[in-house]
Amino acid sequence: MGHAERVREAIRSIPDFPQPGILFRDITPVTEDPAAFSAAIAGLGALLDGTTWDKLAAIESRGFIFGAPLARKVARPMVLLRKAGKLPGQTRSVSYDLEYGSATLEVHADSIAPGDRIIILDDLLATGGTAAAAASLVTQSGGQVAGFCFLVELDDLAGRDSLAGTAPVFSLVHF
Amino acid sequence: MGHAERVREAIRSIPDFPQPGILFRDITPVTEDPAAFSAAIAGLGALLDGTTWDKLAAIESRGFIFGAPLARKVARPMVLLRKAGKLPGQTRSVSYDLEYGSATLEVHADSIAPGDRIIILDDLLATGGTAAAAASLVTQSGGQVAGFCFLVELDDLAGRDSLAGTAPVFSLVHF
Repeated sequence: MGHAERVREAIRSIPDFPQPGILFRDITPVTEDPAAFSAAIAGLGALLDGTTWDKLAAIESRGFIFGAPLARKVARPMVLLRKAGKLPGQTRSVSYDLEYGSATLEVHADSIAPGDRIIILDDLLATGGTAAAAASLVTQSGGQVAGFCFLVELDDLAGRDSLAGTAPVFSLVHF
Repeated sequence: MGHAERVREAIRSIPDFPQPGILFRDITPVTEDPAAFSAAIAGLGALLDGTTWDKLAAIESRGFIFGAPLARKVARPMVLLRKAGKLPGQTRSVSYDLEYGSATLEVHADSIAPGDRIIILDDLLATGGTAAAAASLVTQSGGQVAGFCFLVELDDLAGRDSLAGTAPVFSLVHF
């Protein structure tokens, strides 16, 4: 079985979370199954094989779960993209709309150097709003987005289209 | 240089965050320096060498950053302990007091099996309130706390004393 199939098999689908009508793709069984977790990290690494990049920017908080082992595996820096008010140093921030309300993502001002080629990593691509905000933080910092990388992509929500033209989009598992 | 020294050197101290008078120990430079991140994971792994355990329970969200590579390194399950409302399945939860207000920590009801020996992992031990809440979730689930493991321990806040008698406390770096 390939990496993607192994991960797909481990993901659990939970209806009506966080709201009625939403089928939530739960990645917690992946981290609880060492073989599936290993396949996830190997699979994400393989997705990036043809891409040149310098640093991984992982989105809080499920992005940290997959970003940290991937950054370790390839021995490259992991930059944290965090929710508002969590980073103690000088930050850049971007606010973006959610279905209900808005959210803010921040990065330390000295984490991305001009010219850094950045892979933006999260567990899941839905509409792409959070990933687009992450890309905005990278470019504000003078970096270039070398690619977007997701464990799971929800094809129906067309997040890939919303990111199209900015950088390649890589996803290990599609639903 | 040993693992602990390498990590200690990478940690940045930021005054007056999140409140005046607090000296915040910032671990973000650790994840941005592959050698320091590698030392962190190797060091945490070495702390647990003499302990018998089955699963790692990592506390959201900085616990995920160190828990995920450690779980991968030793090929054991990582269970997520998350803030309220984030886990989609049936959960157990515990509320605990913070300096101002309170917080809730949750775990999926099926993540810890009776008898599982659990290492509770977080980036930082301060007063120990969050770690004690995590221990309560583990025992509620029928598990045993095999140890507490932290990247950083703030000795002055005596969190170790508050956890004493429940399980061994391991910390890589002390301030």
